[in-house]
Amino acid sequence: MNRLVALLTDFGTDDPYAGQVAAVIAGGTDARVVTLTHGVPPHHIQLGAHIVDASLELLPCGAVVLAVVDPGVGTDRHGLIVRRDGRWLVGPDNGLLTPPDRDVQCWTLNRPETWRRKVMPTFHARDIFAPVAARLANFERPEWLGSPVQDPVRVDRPSACTDTRIVRGEVIHIDVFGNLITNIPAAFVQTGFMLETRVGATRIDGLAATYGAGDTPVALIGSWNLLEIAVPGGSAAERLACRIGDEVFVHHADD
Amino acid sequence: MNRLVALLTDFGTDDPYAGQVAAVIAGGTDARVVTLTHGVPPHHIQLGAHIVDASLELLPCGAVVLAVVDPGVGTDRHGLIVRRDGRWLVGPDNGLLTPPDRDVQCWTLNRPETWRRKVMPTFHARDIFAPVAARLANFERPEWLGSPVQDPVRVDRPSACTDTRIVRGEVIHIDVFGNLITNIPAAFVQTGFMLETRVGATRIDGLAATYGAGDTPVALIGSWNLLEIAVPGGSAAERLACRIGDEVFVHHADD
Amino acid sequence: MNRLVALLTDFGTDDPYAGQVAAVIAGGTDARVVTLTHGVPPHHIQLGAHIVDASLELLPCGAVVLAVVDPGVGTDRHGLIVRRDGRWLVGPDNGLLTPPDRDVQCWTLNRPETWRRKVMPTFHARDIFAPVAARLANFERPEWLGSPVQDPVRVDRPSACTDTRIVRGEVIHIDVFGNLITNIPAAFVQTGFMLETRVGATRIDGLAATYGAGDTPVALIGSWNLLEIAVPGGSAAERLACRIGDEVFVHHADD
Repeated sequence: MNRLVALLTDFGTDDPYAGQVAAVIAGGTDARVVTLTHGVPPHHIQLGAHIVDASLELLPCGAVVLAVVDPGVGTDRHGLIVRRDGRWLVGPDNGLLTPPDRDVQCWTLNRPETWRRKVMPTFHARDIFAPVAARLANFERPEWLGSPVQDPVRVDRPSACTDTRIVRGEVIHIDVFGNLITNIPAAFVQTGFMLETRVGATRIDGLAATYGAGDTPVALIGSWNLLEIAVPGGSAAERLACRIGDEVFVHHADD
Repeated sequence: MNRLVALLTDFGTDDPYAGQVAAVIAGGTDARVVTLTHGVPPHHIQLGAHIVDASLELLPCGAVVLAVVDPGVGTDRHGLIVRRDGRWLVGPDNGLLTPPDRDVQCWTLNRPETWRRKVMPTFHARDIFAPVAARLANFERPEWLGSPVQDPVRVDRPSACTDTRIVRGEVIHIDVFGNLITNIPAAFVQTGFMLETRVGATRIDGLAATYGAGDTPVALIGSWNLLEIAVPGGSAAERLACRIGDEVFVHHADD
Repeated sequence: MNRLVALLTDFGTDDPYAGQVAAVIAGGTDARVVTLTHGVPPHHIQLGAHIVDASLELLPCGAVVLAVVDPGVGTDRHGLIVRRDGRWLVGPDNGLLTPPDRDVQCWTLNRPETWRRKVMPTFHARDIFAPVAARLANFERPEWLGSPVQDPVRVDRPSACTDTRIVRGEVIHIDVFGNLITNIPAAFVQTGFMLETRVGATRIDGLAATYGAGDTPVALIGSWNLLEIAVPGGSAAERLACRIGDEVFVHHADD
């Protein structure tokens, strides 16, 4: 048996919030607890949702993901259990947990007797989502924890716009290595066409298979399943003087 | 069985110190290891003590907390086991582990044969506290690890001063969301009186139940069990131009 | 049974990379997963190697260390299993895993059927090293995962130069407390001679046993097994205005 609860929040690790959530989960289940990240930029639901999307298939079936990026904590937004691809997700009903483009089973959390006795309106992650995640890891059924719901909140991600020739997107994240992560999905660029990627004044021909060779900027599909721009052995962000929000164009050149 | 060792230090996560402590614990017990936080500001015993206070009840009974904020490492300060509310604490005898206002059972660590063979004077967390924490998680008795002691060190926390009308405190922490955490305990403001909180030039009426509504500053009792000041959807620190150490007043208005 | 997989990378914790590696390991083994550090400065193989050296003996025998500081990911550098002192190491063959000065058993990773099905050239930590580490934790034999290799890559660490009187080294790391970690090994300074350490304009007599006493700069052998310079209760980096790369001299004075 190999049960797992994975954590994904925007709590950072300077404060005790992430650890307090882990403590409550560990007190409620003997499943292992792993951290996916607590480094989502505060309140950045869309980036959190991309990480959920890219991470889910890495977890064993039956794993539980507690995912909390929750600017609306304490308002009337609901809590949610989502079943996706054989895994469970628990968190706020604000688009973080739900894929933008397909239906998934959802339950809205409405059984206060399955939560911590005293729920603080500012910390649902600790007082509602953590105990619910522990219960799911202990094989409690979602219908014991909530009621089915058909219309979870969906967010428009800043998705790339396409026409026949050009895909337009933007830089949504710069990682620790200075790689530029765009919001252009792999599906939009993995075509038979010749590609040219443009960001600022930089033009990049084709898709590279790796970071490793040369030291000129390359465009590639990275581990986010999104187009990213890298400079082998260096920081693309520095080299190209790019920032989050900068526009990125992919041009399908004539072949 | 659901045994747990929780870590709380000021080691940060850029250095390997926190991980080395976790490795030693994991080598000494098969209890699970969770991190409460390694982000206590270096040497800030009082903030660490507040986190201990707020976290203890989140852990299952019998859990062991290794808590190390230890500017005196290598001097003649002692190591301590503390029994509080059914949990165990291990760390330096400098006030971090002991509540300011009530008696608890304590043992001073004086059994070198229960430590790592070679104790480095600069790293008691790894060489003394970690093996002792692992032994407690393995159900060794505190009297096998130390001797009872009646007078552990207590620190004056920068606690709020009260008179009949005014509570005066200060901002002791700014969290990742920009919330201002004060040193004013919940007990000082949860009265039947009308409250007005003042920080700098900002005046806030009453206690809010949540972060969620509106976008004007609110005062509330947060998860630290301390008065905090928040701006829903924004950073109170930025909005109010506040810094750690700024004075905060709570005025019990006439009713 | 007390199996352990320890993680050491330069991935940081702001991105999900470290967590995704942990998730893949946790999905492949029910051994516990602990983090040594994800805070190695990006691409800094030598500092990572020092941390490997200082951490290995802290882990129980049979533990598996996944260590990844891998600027060459996606190039033709190989993956490696190393057996050192009863522990296993998995990572890139770039000097990170191998001691500079003695022979160890090594296997080059060449069994793609033991990796994740789809290997992304930019993320061998997740797709190759994590599943191999999980298999080692599950007692799979190294010869099932790779082929013996005699000549792993070794890196010149910026090691100290000695003559009869003077050891010259440099500051290679400044830790969270402002301590200056040098590349001068303990063996070079633990002699019967009187020592004088010089960094910039500061001269320090002798080796201290601890950080704790006084507030003048001290030189000591710290937990890295390297010479370090500390200011008790303060930051040596600030006090001595030192930066990474600054030269450090140890003079063996006449006795």
